[in-house]
Amino acid sequence: MPNRWTWHGGGLSAARAHFGQEDWLDLSTGINPHAWPHAAVTPVDWRGLPDEQALREVEQAAATHFGCDPDHVCAVPGTEVGLRLTGALRNDTGRHLNPTYRTHTEMLVGSSPITFDALAQADGESLILANPNNPDGRLLDRATLLGILARRGRSGWLLLDEAFADAHPGHTLADMVEDDHRLVVFRSFGKFFGLAGLRLGFVLGPRDLLARLRATLGAWPVSAAAIAIGTAAYRDSGWIVAMRERLRAEAAELDAHLGARGYAVTGACPLFRLIECGDGSALFERLARRGILTRPFEQHPGWLRLGLPGSREALARFIAALDDHG
Amino acid sequence: MPNRWTWHGGGLSAARAHFGQEDWLDLSTGINPHAWPHAAVTPVDWRGLPDEQALREVEQAAATHFGCDPDHVCAVPGTEVGLRLTGALRNDTGRHLNPTYRTHTEMLVGSSPITFDALAQADGESLILANPNNPDGRLLDRATLLGILARRGRSGWLLLDEAFADAHPGHTLADMVEDDHRLVVFRSFGKFFGLAGLRLGFVLGPRDLLARLRATLGAWPVSAAAIAIGTAAYRDSGWIVAMRERLRAEAAELDAHLGARGYAVTGACPLFRLIECGDGSALFERLARRGILTRPFEQHPGWLRLGLPGSREALARFIAALDDHG
Repeated sequence: MPNRWTWHGGGLSAARAHFGQEDWLDLSTGINPHAWPHAAVTPVDWRGLPDEQALREVEQAAATHFGCDPDHVCAVPGTEVGLRLTGALRNDTGRHLNPTYRTHTEMLVGSSPITFDALAQADGESLILANPNNPDGRLLDRATLLGILARRGRSGWLLLDEAFADAHPGHTLADMVEDDHRLVVFRSFGKFFGLAGLRLGFVLGPRDLLARLRATLGAWPVSAAAIAIGTAAYRDSGWIVAMRERLRAEAAELDAHLGARGYAVTGACPLFRLIECGDGSALFERLARRGILTRPFEQHPGWLRLGLPGSREALARFIAALDDHG
Repeated sequence: MPNRWTWHGGGLSAARAHFGQEDWLDLSTGINPHAWPHAAVTPVDWRGLPDEQALREVEQAAATHFGCDPDHVCAVPGTEVGLRLTGALRNDTGRHLNPTYRTHTEMLVGSSPITFDALAQADGESLILANPNNPDGRLLDRATLLGILARRGRSGWLLLDEAFADAHPGHTLADMVEDDHRLVVFRSFGKFFGLAGLRLGFVLGPRDLLARLRATLGAWPVSAAAIAIGTAAYRDSGWIVAMRERLRAEAAELDAHLGARGYAVTGACPLFRLIECGDGSALFERLARRGILTRPFEQHPGWLRLGLPGSREALARFIAALDDHG
């Protein structure tokens, strides 16, 4: 198995080249397969530079959705860039949770891994943490998160990656971001809204940190489409509420199929499911030969992460591939 | 005159609020008013993360247009971000030309201004330079540029901003970028192709610098639309060749109208024209009261920069406003 698959989700071109399949079902990411449906009909004027007022509007619409003050929200061209630039600006070391999203291991210089159970050993240090966590889907409640924030000591920061938090509105710390809190929250537009190609994310933090981030990005950090589509989608609260329910129902249905076949399913995030399957590499290969791309993990050979199939046909195809041991 | 207008071009929302006009002709930027015409019909799949192979394709299409090796091209979400991140990665000081684009004065820590005529005083130092220059449109030939590159001494770099170079294919140093040259070239998609809202630019440089830039941006630096539209537009060589001629003809026509009214026009770049007008602030205000936004300069009160009107009607409106002293 080439290590492309254990690097990040995605990479269908590489999958086509390697496995010789044309018709792929991509379950390798945690991107909602039910995209916000009005992207194609949202008017986008590509011609001019995005206006600063329009940029403020998408930050305001996002802030309303996150439940925080828009003065503490900075739009960035994808959460990935936001994480990396913030890490570079902090120029801090610290700890990252293990297991976690790969970028967390790279964004603080010299940061070392720590397991959730050993977290008390990192008291007083800066910590990067995802909630819900990726890939295991662990969801921490607010009281636990506030405790972790309080234990950062006199100089440590909590960098909280809420890229998958849209399905869990009661668990965010977005409302806790303030000028005198050493807390930065990262949010992603593309995952929950199913429009990852838009490249839109947000960094929430003290205003002096955001001013430095804006100075690094310049006056036009995101595209005209990110502004137009992001603003309209964040304001579509009816779709957001209904989608949370739909994702939970589809995740529960997938879990039932997996459980009936003896796979233990971990985590609370409906956008991806993590299974224990003994030999993740073998199951990855078996599914890939049937045109289904999933996400294995080099450090955790027994794991496989699955996105939601997104339709009855796709679910049936996945289950049939799972049951086909030939 | 609020200093918003001397900061950057653009800002129509602010102009509407300040001058109470609704119907604006925006001549404040150097963006081609004749946008590449197929953006709206180019298929864009917003749903997935942009594939690494697709990202390589837009870099290859751009490299062919620039005349350089695609291994030395890195796509970035706008030239502005590319300039600022490269400056931060170099962590170098040096000189920037005066007058120049505002961002050049900020991208190298502690850099100091130098005039073109005094350039020999900066021999051996890093230098950020635009060709053609903005706002005065000075266009340096290759021999002059190669001389400037050769005079950077043992450790100085030439950071060459070619954001407006697409109309001048004989004047680029893109083909000179190599691993052992201390040369970085910046290119912009949105200006010549008239699609600045796409946020697409390129940094051309030694591969070790590009590797550090990619590590800062992460795996998905530009949007699905930037990749799809950028690739198709850079491959449209017929449109590119015809547009160079059209822009030159329209700039010459505008110059004739300005010259007939006694305004001295400076510079070789057809995407913007710089005039000497005695009191730039007064002319800016007079045009703005008639709904025409232009670009004044705080440090050069006699200057006004004008983009191309882009149509017979717009040209007539501009000339009428220029002639209306009432």
